Amino acid sequence: MPGSVPLLRQAKLKQINMQTPLHHFKLGDIELLSGKVLPEAVLAYSTYGELSSAKDNVVLLPTFYTGDHIRNEEFFGSGRAIDPSRHFVISINMFGNGFSSSPSNSPPPMDGPHFPDITIYDNIFCQHRLLTEKFGIERIRLVTGWSMAGCQAFHWAAQFPKQVEAILPFCASARTSIHNYVFLEGVKSALTADQNWHDGHYDSPPISGLKAFGRVYAGWAFSQAFYRKELYRTLGFETVEELLQDWEADHLQWDANNLLAKLRTWQSADISANPVYDGDFQHALGATRAKTIVIACSSDLYFPPEDNEIEVRQMPNAELRTFNSPWGHCVASPGNDPEFTSFLDSAISELLENNFS
Amino acid sequence: MPGSVPLLRQAKLKQINMQTPLHHFKLGDIELLSGKVLPEAVLAYSTYGELSSAKDNVVLLPTFYTGDHIRNEEFFGSGRAIDPSRHFVISINMFGNGFSSSPSNSPPPMDGPHFPDITIYDNIFCQHRLLTEKFGIERIRLVTGWSMAGCQAFHWAAQFPKQVEAILPFCASARTSIHNYVFLEGVKSALTADQNWHDGHYDSPPISGLKAFGRVYAGWAFSQAFYRKELYRTLGFETVEELLQDWEADHLQWDANNLLAKLRTWQSADISANPVYDGDFQHALGATRAKTIVIACSSDLYFPPEDNEIEVRQMPNAELRTFNSPWGHCVASPGNDPEFTSFLDSAISELLENNFS
Repeated sequence: MPGSVPLLRQAKLKQINMQTPLHHFKLGDIELLSGKVLPEAVLAYSTYGELSSAKDNVVLLPTFYTGDHIRNEEFFGSGRAIDPSRHFVISINMFGNGFSSSPSNSPPPMDGPHFPDITIYDNIFCQHRLLTEKFGIERIRLVTGWSMAGCQAFHWAAQFPKQVEAILPFCASARTSIHNYVFLEGVKSALTADQNWHDGHYDSPPISGLKAFGRVYAGWAFSQAFYRKELYRTLGFETVEELLQDWEADHLQWDANNLLAKLRTWQSADISANPVYDGDFQHALGATRAKTIVIACSSDLYFPPEDNEIEVRQMPNAELRTFNSPWGHCVASPGNDPEFTSFLDSAISELLENNFS
Repeated sequence: MPGSVPLLRQAKLKQINMQTPLHHFKLGDIELLSGKVLPEAVLAYSTYGELSSAKDNVVLLPTFYTGDHIRNEEFFGSGRAIDPSRHFVISINMFGNGFSSSPSNSPPPMDGPHFPDITIYDNIFCQHRLLTEKFGIERIRLVTGWSMAGCQAFHWAAQFPKQVEAILPFCASARTSIHNYVFLEGVKSALTADQNWHDGHYDSPPISGLKAFGRVYAGWAFSQAFYRKELYRTLGFETVEELLQDWEADHLQWDANNLLAKLRTWQSADISANPVYDGDFQHALGATRAKTIVIACSSDLYFPPEDNEIEVRQMPNAELRTFNSPWGHCVASPGNDPEFTSFLDSAISELLENNFS
């Protein structure tokens, strides 16, 4: 019965703290890795807690693919490993997510389908400017995040090895694998198969395409065992069709060009794809200095532990911890696998204490 | 470079024996499991070798999702485990594949989107009629096949336990898992996101949708390791984009309503979803009598070995053999993993020899 779907969505909305102040850092015209210029670029971010006078309590949270500063609030809190009573938490929206500069909020000539390709390198470069220019921060105790937010954590460690004490990417990678790229080609093609998408020049949303995007995605987001065990029931869905409709509804809320802009960011993610490392992935991994714990989920279908094993082996100060769970990539979505939060927080605590005990 | 794509497709076409005689068995009006009637239904099939006078050398090959009697020729031959010099091979096209009754070849009122849902139970019921009414065959030495053809083998063992000596389903299941169902919802939604699909009432093919169907499918058809190792290069593709374009081209050849009709057949596959077993899956598994070897590929993303383990445990005469390979579901597509063919043929030989030595 579809009845439980709106209930679940209501519950989700309740969790959202609409009072979080959002700040905007004006970057001016930024030259992107591609050589294109994004005029008057803006990073939207929130902060929690207070920056210590020594500026040594900074925890940075980038955002995941369909994430934002609000959804990041699920990863920290009072009594948690990351706690605003001790840490200065900076939560920065990724370009393309509708809060920072995005197809949906950029003025012409960079609006909608004209929005330029932005790499994670570009994101991290601008995040670094925010930290240094706005706050005078030179050291970060921890960069952590789920999925694309974790990919950004990897990038921080390679791009600013001297500034980053520790990273903890979970369900993420230092370079988007070819299979992950192909999975993303799939959801992209599902969205753009809708004629109403009109190469991004739509007047009203490409509803069929957005729904198909969500429906294809749902097969990847969990694992075979998640479905075999019917774990969607624990989320309040009586049937798998209800789960699929919820994924459709989630993606209907997104602007199609925003989804596609972030997708391109994801597909091009590679800590070595920049002038610093010139495509030498091993060199980039080897150049990281941050104490690193990578957490993988045993059943993650697009960030499988095997990719992380290869990466961690080549990082000087890193270890991989694989969390066994049938929840797949969505193990880290708050409220899913109840044991994951303590597994994650325990690892975060180790990193924060080891560095500054 | 896209140059190698047509070359590969040319190579594929060369393999096809256009001389294979195709026969048509007229079933008359058949009542389907759904209660609907498909008028003047037809099964298209080919045979190879000669039926022995004792009628004890029958090997039955159903067809896989995008398969047909021609592509089945890749699974047997002179000197192979299934050899027309010894066996009477009957290769029967599944309803919906364009050769047997399908949306594309049925006259009104059952044409195109009006074509009724057909289960594997219906397919097997009609295949049994062909074998008994046309050939007087009462015993089948082996039913074997890849993917949906293997699902049909499972169904044969449950529907006609006394008639089937042995089955060897590979990369298949006795019941479509929920995850497999969700994966299929994904490719379906990608196809139908194309407005040109018009609920099946298209005048010209929904090209974007068919391409999206193929592009989404390609992420599932192989494994993460297949892409990590860039094994598509061994297929003649220099880039992964070439592979994806080949999958697009493959699906452009298909009639959209045919693809969707077979997809519904696949989604509803369940050896117990019929009046004989009334949804009691364990009962249906337990009622099989055929000597059974199930082959799974370790990295198959939608027919994972775990599902087969559960099934085989409940079958009285069955074993599971997992073939370790990064080729995923496509391990069994001829010409992919060169070691799979001998692994498969060896198991087939065991079954054929054990039963009739």
